[in-house]
Amino acid sequence: MPHRSDEALPAWFLGPRAENADLVERLVTEALRDHVFWRRNYHPEDGVGIRELDKRREGYEAAVATLTQELMGLLAQLKRDVPFFSGRYKGHMIFEQTIASQIGYFAAMLYNPNNVSAEASPVTTRLEIDVARQLARMVGYHPDHAWGHLTSGGTVANFEALWIARNLHYLPVAAAGAAAELGLRLDVRTPDGTSAPVRELPLWALLNIDAEPALDLWQSLWSAAPAEDVRRAVERHSLSAVGYQDYSLRLAATYGDALPAAVVLVAATAHYSWEKIVRALGIGASQLRFVPVDAACRTDPDALWERLREFAARRTPVIGCVSVCGTTEESAVDRLDQLLEVRDRARAELGMAFHLHSDACYGGYAAAVTWRADGTRRTAAEARLATGTTWPTDDWMRAMTALAGADSVTIDPHKLGYVPYPAGAFLLRDRRARDLVAIDPPYLTPPSQSTIDAGAGQELFLGRFIFEGSKPGAAAAAVWLSHKVLPLDERGYGYLVERTVVGARRLHAALRAATPDGFDVVVLPEPDINIVCFIVRHPQLSTLTGLNALNEAIYARMSHTRDGQAPEYIITRTRLRTPMYDGAIAPILESLGSGTVEEWASDSDGLVVLRSTVMDPFLASPTGGVDHVAGFVEALGRAAAGAFAELRDGD
Amino acid sequence: MPHRSDEALPAWFLGPRAENADLVERLVTEALRDHVFWRRNYHPEDGVGIRELDKRREGYEAAVATLTQELMGLLAQLKRDVPFFSGRYKGHMIFEQTIASQIGYFAAMLYNPNNVSAEASPVTTRLEIDVARQLARMVGYHPDHAWGHLTSGGTVANFEALWIARNLHYLPVAAAGAAAELGLRLDVRTPDGTSAPVRELPLWALLNIDAEPALDLWQSLWSAAPAEDVRRAVERHSLSAVGYQDYSLRLAATYGDALPAAVVLVAATAHYSWEKIVRALGIGASQLRFVPVDAACRTDPDALWERLREFAARRTPVIGCVSVCGTTEESAVDRLDQLLEVRDRARAELGMAFHLHSDACYGGYAAAVTWRADGTRRTAAEARLATGTTWPTDDWMRAMTALAGADSVTIDPHKLGYVPYPAGAFLLRDRRARDLVAIDPPYLTPPSQSTIDAGAGQELFLGRFIFEGSKPGAAAAAVWLSHKVLPLDERGYGYLVERTVVGARRLHAALRAATPDGFDVVVLPEPDINIVCFIVRHPQLSTLTGLNALNEAIYARMSHTRDGQAPEYIITRTRLRTPMYDGAIAPILESLGSGTVEEWASDSDGLVVLRSTVMDPFLASPTGGVDHVAGFVEALGRAAAGAFAELRDGD
Repeated sequence: MPHRSDEALPAWFLGPRAENADLVERLVTEALRDHVFWRRNYHPEDGVGIRELDKRREGYEAAVATLTQELMGLLAQLKRDVPFFSGRYKGHMIFEQTIASQIGYFAAMLYNPNNVSAEASPVTTRLEIDVARQLARMVGYHPDHAWGHLTSGGTVANFEALWIARNLHYLPVAAAGAAAELGLRLDVRTPDGTSAPVRELPLWALLNIDAEPALDLWQSLWSAAPAEDVRRAVERHSLSAVGYQDYSLRLAATYGDALPAAVVLVAATAHYSWEKIVRALGIGASQLRFVPVDAACRTDPDALWERLREFAARRTPVIGCVSVCGTTEESAVDRLDQLLEVRDRARAELGMAFHLHSDACYGGYAAAVTWRADGTRRTAAEARLATGTTWPTDDWMRAMTALAGADSVTIDPHKLGYVPYPAGAFLLRDRRARDLVAIDPPYLTPPSQSTIDAGAGQELFLGRFIFEGSKPGAAAAAVWLSHKVLPLDERGYGYLVERTVVGARRLHAALRAATPDGFDVVVLPEPDINIVCFIVRHPQLSTLTGLNALNEAIYARMSHTRDGQAPEYIITRTRLRTPMYDGAIAPILESLGSGTVEEWASDSDGLVVLRSTVMDPFLASPTGGVDHVAGFVEALGRAAAGAFAELRDGD
Repeated sequence: MPHRSDEALPAWFLGPRAENADLVERLVTEALRDHVFWRRNYHPEDGVGIRELDKRREGYEAAVATLTQELMGLLAQLKRDVPFFSGRYKGHMIFEQTIASQIGYFAAMLYNPNNVSAEASPVTTRLEIDVARQLARMVGYHPDHAWGHLTSGGTVANFEALWIARNLHYLPVAAAGAAAELGLRLDVRTPDGTSAPVRELPLWALLNIDAEPALDLWQSLWSAAPAEDVRRAVERHSLSAVGYQDYSLRLAATYGDALPAAVVLVAATAHYSWEKIVRALGIGASQLRFVPVDAACRTDPDALWERLREFAARRTPVIGCVSVCGTTEESAVDRLDQLLEVRDRARAELGMAFHLHSDACYGGYAAAVTWRADGTRRTAAEARLATGTTWPTDDWMRAMTALAGADSVTIDPHKLGYVPYPAGAFLLRDRRARDLVAIDPPYLTPPSQSTIDAGAGQELFLGRFIFEGSKPGAAAAAVWLSHKVLPLDERGYGYLVERTVVGARRLHAALRAATPDGFDVVVLPEPDINIVCFIVRHPQLSTLTGLNALNEAIYARMSHTRDGQAPEYIITRTRLRTPMYDGAIAPILESLGSGTVEEWASDSDGLVVLRSTVMDPFLASPTGGVDHVAGFVEALGRAAAGAFAELRDGD
């Protein structure tokens, strides 16, 4: 049913004072009792298992006493947890969760379905598939051609993306080997748009086939010979089966042309987990190559082009390029539209092809801003009218709608989706690519005679196509219910994200204008979404070292754990380091007047930057209570003064 | 407080008729209100964010209406979920969850801590570390030398085990390279017990160093030169950094001795995820080598020895060997004590060393059976007295206590720990090995000035050492509270597992004795824990194909999804296939009188086996209600008759 989003917002969360406690308690109780009576209605003739008499025994009483007492102990401990729900929390990417997701999680957790297979989750596997389709539609994929699923989080989702990209990269080599073995002639489309027999292509060409023609080739291979023959041949030629060690030696032997190890390009701002991922996949951390960012911390398209030219010149294949939509540190949104143009140019001019992945773990839900309620795209001007600010720019809208062009996208519902952990998501533009990591376990195949037909049965057995096995169906229910209450467009998540952007801009403006006694605040540029980064400066601590010490000390005073005392406001901090931030650092250092780019670059400690994520939608227009923008600026002044005194006394 | 476990058991679960509904509702409400008033007590001066007036707006009412209505829709859908709680569910490895874990999860989920770092989870990260220590102690590790953490499930935990094993395998090579580059002389202990300069060892010897001397070598390297120099040298020589492609070529070039690709040995009964894991890690599915099982589906120690001899003869290095404690299909518990002896012998006679991992994802909690309340080990005879059966045997106790000798163990609390998904666990005997996969992200380092000192701070930043990033602190709270109520010894989980074994044996005996009209039931041997496997036979369907068709048809009638109708009892099925089950199949085929081993081995469809996991502790001694052992046998007879008629009519 339609509603005014500004009026609906107060109903979406429990609230900073738990204002919606009655509502939540009612729904929690409802969900619990509904489950209880489901049990009682299941074969009531089975009679009672736990008799009233059993409940009157000493051991029963003792167990209940232990449970109650230990729960009280847990509740007491939890009071030392971080108040993410409060307007005073301006730290990491977390706020409170939507009521819908909390209740959805709880309701389904009582059933504890396992989304590894529909046999253990007939309801929630379908919800997960629904949710993946909704997210696919939000990024602009065609839901029938795309495919996706939930993961435990962004790391696993990104891992799957690069795992598939790696297998896709080597797929034409495997197909060429299998075709030769089976005596098949198969053609494939190369970057210049022509078709060529796959067996005649040199290694460099085989490693530069786009995803779509590679998957077409894959399909032709499987239809050109009996499946069992193809399977055997593929196993003798695929990296997954052969393993890197023999594969590397064999490539060199077969093609007499041991190309340099293939690389993965990532935005310099990419999350640290990408290093874990290339290490684990055996690609190697040295093959993770950073693409410099511009002053807004976005991947620099020109720099990407230069890198690609260098790799082409050295005949170094590129497995994939990871663009970021909402960097962890700054919420910067890459100009994916421009990066896609660079890829087109690389295809045309350099004969290069590679997987383009968007790590939208943080920023993905901001794509909801681009959609009207009727399923058509909004213009940037329309969205600006809604925010009453200069955000979003036309360029931002282009960047977000360009997600549709990425080969894969990862989005974490447990970040800007405001649902409880764990909920990441992996989306694939061309669903066929999932077969490159599929597997057949012996005991989880769907029944042949059932209401689920064979084809759909496969669809509902997620464990075949994904990295993880057992996984909570409750997470799917949480995301599903939240999407029902907050649609993935201007009415729901779009509105929510907009409010956080407006709040972040209020904070940004206030910090820029702030003049705490004796200090000044240097702010990084206005964020693409809602993370505000800034540095506090004092004239007596003007070196880079002094500046870092001051900001570290302020962070210590404004982080949760200091001396066991709750700080007035809670922030976090990061360090901008060379060479990742070379493109962004010059204007910041200039504003700071503290040292030169060379000094900064020579210092492995980098530059400490204070960081506040504004996921609190209430900051945009405070009602009733205190204004946490003003409060924050004042608290920052006190923390700076205290930090400064501490550093001075410590000298 | 002490209690009689038999009297306590009825208090541990909500119950098949939700007999403990009042208790659960009270505790859920308590946890919710406790959270609500925590919010209200946090800076009460901030005033109200959501005003009463806001709740009277049309948009608010509409949003609440949407939420309530969609929740009702979700609850209605969930009624089609699987009744895991019921005595009628005898399928996959799932039952209902302990009340403690459900409430623990819910209570912490309201706070939604993120156990990636204590900064986002000051309470639950500590709970996770507690829980890992408890599990480490249960498998017999020294809690101060061991280390562990929770994962999203068994796949990720097993992945971490093999990831670390792979890096450990190549560690001496990296150390040798780094030592040469830095001009250091470092000694290492080789399998023959002598010390040798690492730079002088041939490749085969470097790839056969045990974990402990390898980690000692690692420590010596880091203390022999400035850290920055070591870091740079290691990066030039470690597989993680260099990546497989260059590394493989370089090994061949440096040592002039390109050994065959290193293999991973797994029990033939190992979970299908091991294939995902070796594929993803780049080791390759072809390098996954199965070790045959004996008639009890346990890894055959003699077969392992033979395999190792073959590999030694072909100079094929072994990265690791995966033993299983509680196979997915049969709950078979490998004789780990004997496998460890084989490893010792391989070290002494073949000069081989490798990582020995126990995949105890399913069976790990059964180790609680081996512990008395006072922290000493029970004897098998003591445990048999408690079960009143022949279980556990002395050999079983030896196998379980041998877990202490495994280099790593994975255990899923979301299986025999009876906690909600997601909760896997990874345990490492020598905590130093975690450094081989550690990483430093820029924004999650612990504050230098805080109540958490630097050393402890590192400990509390789990994201550095583990594969995943953001993860639910609620899972840690769930496991923690459940361990508080059910200790990991004979009083708690030990008792619970015992009851399921007794129940499984009742079912096993009843099936063995069953003579449904016209059919007979062939049971596999009594399980090591609690999974009962059996095959229904009819004289007119005596071929392997006929037998498989009959049992598939019975499965279809006794699985949840048939024709949308709830079956009387719910089971699952698996397929024993060649060559994995060659060691176990002969006696089964003999009992069946259906075909020969050769026939079976030539048929890729294998043998369909019906499978019932007995995680229901109430099956052991039914009180009040129906006896689900008798009920099951009768329902099986009806399903068999129906299936037979269907097959006959279909002819």
